[in-house]
Amino acid sequence: MRTAICERFGVEFPLFAFSHCRDVVAAVTNAGGIGVLGAVAYSPQQLDAELNWIDARVGGRPYGVDVLVPGKIDASAADRSARLADFIPERHRDFVAYLFGKYGVSAPEPFTGTMPAHGDEMGRRVTAEGATGLIGVALKHPIALIASALGPPPPEMVDKARKAGVPVAALVGTVEHARRQVAAGADVIVAQGSEAGGHTGEISTMVLVPQVVDAVDVPVLAAGGIADGRQVAAALALGAEGVWCGSVWLTTEEAETVPPVKHKMLAATSADTVRSRSRTGKPARQLKSAWTEEWDGAQESPGPLQMPLQMLLAESAMARINRAAERGRPGAVELANYFVGQVVGQMNQVRPARQVVYGMIEEFAASVERLQRFTDDGHAPHP
Amino acid sequence: MRTAICERFGVEFPLFAFSHCRDVVAAVTNAGGIGVLGAVAYSPQQLDAELNWIDARVGGRPYGVDVLVPGKIDASAADRSARLADFIPERHRDFVAYLFGKYGVSAPEPFTGTMPAHGDEMGRRVTAEGATGLIGVALKHPIALIASALGPPPPEMVDKARKAGVPVAALVGTVEHARRQVAAGADVIVAQGSEAGGHTGEISTMVLVPQVVDAVDVPVLAAGGIADGRQVAAALALGAEGVWCGSVWLTTEEAETVPPVKHKMLAATSADTVRSRSRTGKPARQLKSAWTEEWDGAQESPGPLQMPLQMLLAESAMARINRAAERGRPGAVELANYFVGQVVGQMNQVRPARQVVYGMIEEFAASVERLQRFTDDGHAPHP
Repeated sequence: MRTAICERFGVEFPLFAFSHCRDVVAAVTNAGGIGVLGAVAYSPQQLDAELNWIDARVGGRPYGVDVLVPGKIDASAADRSARLADFIPERHRDFVAYLFGKYGVSAPEPFTGTMPAHGDEMGRRVTAEGATGLIGVALKHPIALIASALGPPPPEMVDKARKAGVPVAALVGTVEHARRQVAAGADVIVAQGSEAGGHTGEISTMVLVPQVVDAVDVPVLAAGGIADGRQVAAALALGAEGVWCGSVWLTTEEAETVPPVKHKMLAATSADTVRSRSRTGKPARQLKSAWTEEWDGAQESPGPLQMPLQMLLAESAMARINRAAERGRPGAVELANYFVGQVVGQMNQVRPARQVVYGMIEEFAASVERLQRFTDDGHAPHP
Repeated sequence: MRTAICERFGVEFPLFAFSHCRDVVAAVTNAGGIGVLGAVAYSPQQLDAELNWIDARVGGRPYGVDVLVPGKIDASAADRSARLADFIPERHRDFVAYLFGKYGVSAPEPFTGTMPAHGDEMGRRVTAEGATGLIGVALKHPIALIASALGPPPPEMVDKARKAGVPVAALVGTVEHARRQVAAGADVIVAQGSEAGGHTGEISTMVLVPQVVDAVDVPVLAAGGIADGRQVAAALALGAEGVWCGSVWLTTEEAETVPPVKHKMLAATSADTVRSRSRTGKPARQLKSAWTEEWDGAQESPGPLQMPLQMLLAESAMARINRAAERGRPGAVELANYFVGQVVGQMNQVRPARQVVYGMIEEFAASVERLQRFTDDGHAPHP
C-alpha cells in the first residue's frame, strides 16, 4: 500500500512496533513493518550491542530507536552529584517495605531501598543528559527513525538526527503538544490516545487523531487502542498515515515479559488497566494490581514521587516482586504488573510477532473491503 | 450505502442522532439519518406532544425515543411515597447554598433545596416505574427505535416493544454488558466509549467496538468520539454497522443549549471535559466547570449522592445557575456546564443540524476513498 509513511520508510505496511525486546523489533521489521527499540532499559554500551544484534538480522530493513526524554524537573535532579536513590524519602522506602511485608514478598533482609547499580543508571538515563548518550549511540547505527517518548525533542537531539539524516518522531497526547513538537523539529507525530499503555494523556485516539492531523503538516501516526487490522483501518480512516503499537507485542512468543505478568495480560479484560503514577511518577497506563491500588488508594500511601525517583523505587521493588512472582508467591503475583493499554482485552493468545503483523495486514484488507462493499453498491451516500 | 442498519431502518446513512431537542431530531431524520429524542426531561403528556410535533414534520421517516432506565437502587427510592427531594441530606443542600454564595449566584432567599415540581417528576421518571409511563407513550407513536440508556431494558419494555414491532437498542460500555443486554432482548447494541458525553464507562471506542462486534450477533452502533465523517468511517472500519452521536448536536442552530454553555462548548478543547458523578450520581462526562471541581475536589464537598437524588439536586441548582449565567453573572458562568464528550474540541462553529449530517456524509465518502487509494495501487498489502 501507499501512505506517506510507506513511501518515506520504504515499507508496504505503515506499522511501527515499539518494544524493549530486540527479537520483537527484528521480527516486525522482517515481517514488513518497522520495529522500534525502547532504549531506556539499556546503558549506551548495552544499546550498542542490541543494535549490532538487530543490524545483523534485518538485512538493512528499517527499524528505529525510542529514547525517553523527560522534562526539566528531572534534568535538575540529574545535575546533582549524589546518587539519585539518595533523594528517595524514608517514608517511600518504608511504604515499599510495608507492601513487601503485607504481600509476603519476603527478602533475606528488610527492604532498604538500596538500588541495584543499573537502577541508578536507569534513573539517570531518563534525564536530558542521560538520554544524550543513548542518542549518540543510536545514530551510529543505520536507524530509520529516532523517537522521543516524553516532551519535545531537545535541540541537540534534533540537530544530531538531522545531520545523520534520521527523521525524528515525537509522541503527543494533545493538539497543543503536537504543534509544539513540530515547532521543535519533529518530522513525524505519534498522536497517542488515553487508551494506550505507558505514559499517556486523557484524550482518546478517536478524538485526538483527526484534530492532530488537521493541526500539523507532518505525517501523523495513530497510537493507543490498536492491536488488530480493523483498528489500523480505523486509524487511517481518521487521517493517520500509519500506526504505532506497543502493547500487542507483550504477549508474543518473542516478548521477554515476566511469565506471571504475561499470564495476567492474557487473562485481563479491557477494564483491567489503570492510568497511575505509581510506576514512574508520571501518569502511565498499566495493569491494575495490588501495586497500583495500594499506591493510589491506601491510607498508608505517601503518594508517588516524581520521575525519575518513583521509577527508580518502583523498578527496584518490581525486580524483587517479579522474582517472587516467578517463584509462585501469591502476594507477589497480586503486586506484579506492567505497562499495557486497554487492548490487553484483545491479547488472549501467544503468537509469534510475525503472525501478529500478518494478521493485522489481512484484517486491514478485509476491513477496507468491507467499507468498499458498503459504498460500492450504487447507493453511495450523498447529501 | 448498505449496512445492516441502513437496510433495517431504510436509511442511506447509518447515523443515529441523540438529542433532547425535537428540532434536532426532526432535522437529522429529514437529512437522511435517524433522530432519537431523549425523553427523560419530559412528562408522559409532554413527550406525547413532542412526538406529535415530530410526527407532523418527518413524513414517516424513521426516528426513535431514548428513555433512561436505571438500576435497582433508584427503583427502591421510587417506591417510597414521600417526595424524592425529602431524601436529599441537609449537608448536600448546604453545600449547594455554599456554592451559590461563593460564586455569587444570588437568589431572593437562601437556597433551601426546594425542588421545582418538575424536578421531583424528573427524579421519578428515572426510576423503573417512571420510565414505564414514557415507554407507553412512545410506543403509541410510529417510532423506529426505542433505546434504554442505562442498564438492561426491563422485560416489560422489551415485551411492549416486541408487540409494537419496534426494535430495542441498549447502550453499553463493556463486552460483558453487551452480552447481558442481548440476553435481555436488545436488538441493537450501542457500544459507547469512555470519550462519550453523559453516562459512560472507562473503555475507549477504539478498543470497545471491535470486542463488542465479536461478542454479540446483533448490529452494533459505535458511540463516543464521533463528530465528523472520518470518525464515522473509523467506526465502520472497527466493525460497527452505524454510529450514535449526541454531543455534536449541542452546538447546532436548533439546539436549546443554554447560550453561555453553548459558548463554553464552542471555545472548549478536548481536554476540557471530565467524567464526574456531580450531575446525576453516576459517572457522566461533561464540561469541566467550577461545579465539577467543587463537588469532586473541594474539602467542603459532601460528595455526590446516588441517582436520582444527585440529579434532582443538580438539576434544580443548575436551573438557577443557568438563569444567573444568562444574566452574565461571572460566578454562575464558572459553575455552568452540561454533558458533552471529548469531541467538544471539534465543535467550533454553530451549524444547522442538517449541515452537520451532510458534512459527515461527505467526509465519510472522502475517508473511504482515501483508504481505497492507499490500497488500490497494485501494492495491496499481503503477508
